[in-house]
Amino acid sequence: MRTYSPVAFSRVSLEGAFWRERLDTVLSRTIPSQHRQLERHGILHSLTIPKPPPPLTIPRNHHDFTMQIFWDSDVGKWIEAASYALSHRRDEAIEADIDAITELLATAQLPDGYLNCWYIGRELENRWTNLRDNHELYCAGHMLEGAVAYFQVTGRRRLLDIMLRYVDHIDTVFGPRENQKHGYCGHQEIEIALLKAYRVTHNQRHLDLAAYFINERGRTPHYFDAEAIARGDDPKKFWAKTYQYNQSHLPVRQQDKVVGHAVRAMYMYTAMAELAAELGDESLKRACETLWRDVIGKRMYLTGGLGPAAANEGFTEDYDLPNDTAYAETCASVALIFWAQRMLHLDLDGKYADVLELALFNNALSGLSRDGQHYFYENPLDSDGRHSRWEWHACPCCTMNASRLIASVGGYFCSESKDAIALHLYGGISATLEVGGRKVKIKEQSNYPWSGAVRVSVDPDSEGEFVLKLRIPGWAKRPTASVNGVQVDVAAARNGYLDIRRVWRQGDTVALDLPMAPERIYAHPFVRMDVGRVALKRGPLVYCLEEADNPGHRMQVLQLPRASALKTAARTDLLGGIVTIVVDGDALESADWENDLYRATAPRETCTSLTAIPYYLWNNRQKGSMTVWIAER
Amino acid sequence: MRTYSPVAFSRVSLEGAFWRERLDTVLSRTIPSQHRQLERHGILHSLTIPKPPPPLTIPRNHHDFTMQIFWDSDVGKWIEAASYALSHRRDEAIEADIDAITELLATAQLPDGYLNCWYIGRELENRWTNLRDNHELYCAGHMLEGAVAYFQVTGRRRLLDIMLRYVDHIDTVFGPRENQKHGYCGHQEIEIALLKAYRVTHNQRHLDLAAYFINERGRTPHYFDAEAIARGDDPKKFWAKTYQYNQSHLPVRQQDKVVGHAVRAMYMYTAMAELAAELGDESLKRACETLWRDVIGKRMYLTGGLGPAAANEGFTEDYDLPNDTAYAETCASVALIFWAQRMLHLDLDGKYADVLELALFNNALSGLSRDGQHYFYENPLDSDGRHSRWEWHACPCCTMNASRLIASVGGYFCSESKDAIALHLYGGISATLEVGGRKVKIKEQSNYPWSGAVRVSVDPDSEGEFVLKLRIPGWAKRPTASVNGVQVDVAAARNGYLDIRRVWRQGDTVALDLPMAPERIYAHPFVRMDVGRVALKRGPLVYCLEEADNPGHRMQVLQLPRASALKTAARTDLLGGIVTIVVDGDALESADWENDLYRATAPRETCTSLTAIPYYLWNNRQKGSMTVWIAER
Repeated sequence: MRTYSPVAFSRVSLEGAFWRERLDTVLSRTIPSQHRQLERHGILHSLTIPKPPPPLTIPRNHHDFTMQIFWDSDVGKWIEAASYALSHRRDEAIEADIDAITELLATAQLPDGYLNCWYIGRELENRWTNLRDNHELYCAGHMLEGAVAYFQVTGRRRLLDIMLRYVDHIDTVFGPRENQKHGYCGHQEIEIALLKAYRVTHNQRHLDLAAYFINERGRTPHYFDAEAIARGDDPKKFWAKTYQYNQSHLPVRQQDKVVGHAVRAMYMYTAMAELAAELGDESLKRACETLWRDVIGKRMYLTGGLGPAAANEGFTEDYDLPNDTAYAETCASVALIFWAQRMLHLDLDGKYADVLELALFNNALSGLSRDGQHYFYENPLDSDGRHSRWEWHACPCCTMNASRLIASVGGYFCSESKDAIALHLYGGISATLEVGGRKVKIKEQSNYPWSGAVRVSVDPDSEGEFVLKLRIPGWAKRPTASVNGVQVDVAAARNGYLDIRRVWRQGDTVALDLPMAPERIYAHPFVRMDVGRVALKRGPLVYCLEEADNPGHRMQVLQLPRASALKTAARTDLLGGIVTIVVDGDALESADWENDLYRATAPRETCTSLTAIPYYLWNNRQKGSMTVWIAER
Repeated sequence: MRTYSPVAFSRVSLEGAFWRERLDTVLSRTIPSQHRQLERHGILHSLTIPKPPPPLTIPRNHHDFTMQIFWDSDVGKWIEAASYALSHRRDEAIEADIDAITELLATAQLPDGYLNCWYIGRELENRWTNLRDNHELYCAGHMLEGAVAYFQVTGRRRLLDIMLRYVDHIDTVFGPRENQKHGYCGHQEIEIALLKAYRVTHNQRHLDLAAYFINERGRTPHYFDAEAIARGDDPKKFWAKTYQYNQSHLPVRQQDKVVGHAVRAMYMYTAMAELAAELGDESLKRACETLWRDVIGKRMYLTGGLGPAAANEGFTEDYDLPNDTAYAETCASVALIFWAQRMLHLDLDGKYADVLELALFNNALSGLSRDGQHYFYENPLDSDGRHSRWEWHACPCCTMNASRLIASVGGYFCSESKDAIALHLYGGISATLEVGGRKVKIKEQSNYPWSGAVRVSVDPDSEGEFVLKLRIPGWAKRPTASVNGVQVDVAAARNGYLDIRRVWRQGDTVALDLPMAPERIYAHPFVRMDVGRVALKRGPLVYCLEEADNPGHRMQVLQLPRASALKTAARTDLLGGIVTIVVDGDALESADWENDLYRATAPRETCTSLTAIPYYLWNNRQKGSMTVWIAER
């Protein structure tokens, strides 16, 4: 089913200024500071299985649950992010840190291969008794992803072997046989990890186990019911009230609404799409396509954020997208990028790349501060000034999702197939790809996302015919392209890609121009919060008004007349060099309201120039109000 | 300090169609059905102190708290509401019900006077150990209010005597002496009840105890700290996190922000204002005035609703007034009416009557359905159609607050003083008042709130000079008035009242015309949810768009051009006969959006006529969407 393969990030050199800056920040600041935080918060120490177990650092909540139970996953994600960083720049200190963690895990691992530091340290007798809540396979999954990444970058197998022994153990515990548990994790993740392991091991059991977890999910009699009863719990008293929360309310192929906890959902769909490709499973592919239409058409913020509600960290109703209380967890957008990439490689349809790009440049990048050491967990589209990035979090899941995404972002830029090369993102990369046995050096140069002027040089090691597929973003109006100066008909683009088939020779150059006029964006009228409101966008970037650029006002009192022309201004002095959108607007005056809260006359409006910056950059200067959706009049 | 006294509702005959209908519904449907619900839910049975205590009907929440602990208060409120009903129409069956409850309470009461059925039945050893959470004095307060009301209406003292014995007990337990507890209730209420009892008993100890509870509140060392430590609890672990929740974070005279649980706040301010009048306490009056300015200027919904947040059932930040998630509890608006009435009698300033009227005709009336047997607990100003009235509630506080308010609404219409009569509300009443030893029959006739044409006949039993004060509502534009056909200068009105001083004779008539043009209302620009939005109001009534009158649309897609003229239409066929507001607007079209969630073109607008009904009447026909704040363009 899959004709295109993603090109691993380690083969893609990031050369453009935009991603260089983010990557350097992650390598030199984020990764080391995250290790310090794991140390400071006792997370690394927990791998030593201290006896007696120390008091909980994170107290249990009223569901008797402590987030400390998934500390292993944080370590695994840090190893994964750090490994990706190492592929850019080897670092003995970081490698020593990972090797030290590996030794702790080797010591902790039980003779039967079991390896979960919470259960080994505190309640081994209860292992595998609460898959619904306790993240046991989720932890295994993240540590396995870390082990695979570290092996891929360094060639060192020790951590991978430890984790594959654990996988062997899991493979004996779970499966269709009568003496096995017919279960799966309440927090999907291990399925993705097993598929990554399979790519390295080519061990069919790893693929089969991933498929087993996906296929078993949501079948009746329900595993989480049986498991709760076996524990002596009443399954009816599930704290999240519905198995929609963890997407086990139905077998996955029968699911057609995106529901529940957003990160769990996205991790599951990612695994489903990848399995569909791996197994050529049409029914799984169709389920993914149905779910995709649902989330993109009814349940996604303009920024690529997912999940409006804090209560379930997830989805509520169609078109329910409140801006100020948006949960829009960083992790969920990162996971949407994972899913979009899998969907893209099922069909190479630009609609998937459009969403991948949107989530990447907006909600996902928003999660990490410019200094690389502060994070958003929630990414609201409107703030009265109280929302701010934090240094760390009791649940630090988003921190390492940001770093592992950015450290491996090169992997989202291009794909290769038997007779084609596809470029999905732009921003300055070079890579040597393989097409029909031929090595082709690709060098893409641009100042993307600030400019849509893209130049691609194509240098095959020998001349030959193949297709260069250039993504034409859905937002692009009147794009133009040329090969060696000769115009190409962009109107011939299909499904978001312009196919240039020709005999390519050394020195061929392609020019692609994606005009980046700033534009007004409107939401579907059923998004009641955005009725009468407009958002600003330029290229892939969603913009916002922030108080730092529009002092003296709360951003919520600013209005944008429909007739005002949007202008852009390149600002090298601002936030490391950005393009702002500037437009004449007005501000509702409050000075004359005194103690009135309501009046029979409309507020006075005074003209003011509005300056908008890219959403992902807000809250990097000072606390202040912000809004994406501006009242339009 | 107090020159005007409210005229008790039992002296005011409601004759206008509007209040007659509400009153008849409450008398014939609400009061009996509430008794049935108290029976059905085991609340009445709990007064029998069953042994052994039956399992909880309302399970404990994660704070180990069950709302069942304040069942006594529900019984007390029902007795109060039923007693008010009896004053309109005696009813042997209801009186027998109250007498039966009285006998249960007589049996339950302990020899020392203590009388709380929860504690007596389940954990007597713990009485008075958790004033912060367990509503013990709150229950006493409501039962005392019921007892006072029943005595006032029937002259029967048995229930009153039982409750006064309990008050005697409370008076020994609480007070300044060393062997007494220096405490007060976490849920203010008993203060109001003690002041009501004082009016009947003239027993100084009742007044002193109310003052003690008010004065002691928020002093340090903090009573709730000491009490928690005595119980073996960590006071730092207070589930509500802050004593702002119950307004004990500061001594009451130092409080200048309206914070925490809205009903508790309003009950406290009510008692404070009444105590200020009773004692001539200027510092207490000033605190009330500061708090009033705060809530009216920054924290009240247009409908008179209070408290945006479900989390604390109360207040959050200035100008934080979300419409769809508004809590705006019915009880809080009823309590705001209590407070406004006390403030009004401190100063007779129309600004208090304006708020009283606003809360009454909008958020408070909204709490009870037309059929008199369905209730809103929360009163949001925007709904996607899921919000609906319920038949009963695990916490039925709002049900009896609605019935006791309506059954006694006549008490808010007028006041008397040595040389003046004041009319605050209009709607068709007659009453015989006392002015300077003279009896004056007042008959006010109008079709208020549908029309502002008011006629008042003034019939003193002997001619004489006094002042008739007519309230000129803050919303009234260009009102006119005349006495016996001779024009009176309304511009001379001060503080919301037109004073007509003259020698009054039998047969004098006053005409007051309050033109009721429908008007557009705007919120302070800092209310970010309402920027670019407009509400419709006519007289005291806030209007809303409901799907039943505007079929085929979600109300949230409707827009109101600023230039459209508001028209009124009297509709005898609708909701018992109302005046609607009709205006040309437009609807955002969604049919052509297909699966798009965002687009670079604004939604198409199609012209449509909008019909608005009074907010308090919504959700009486079918489920459907509703909005008060309409996008204006």
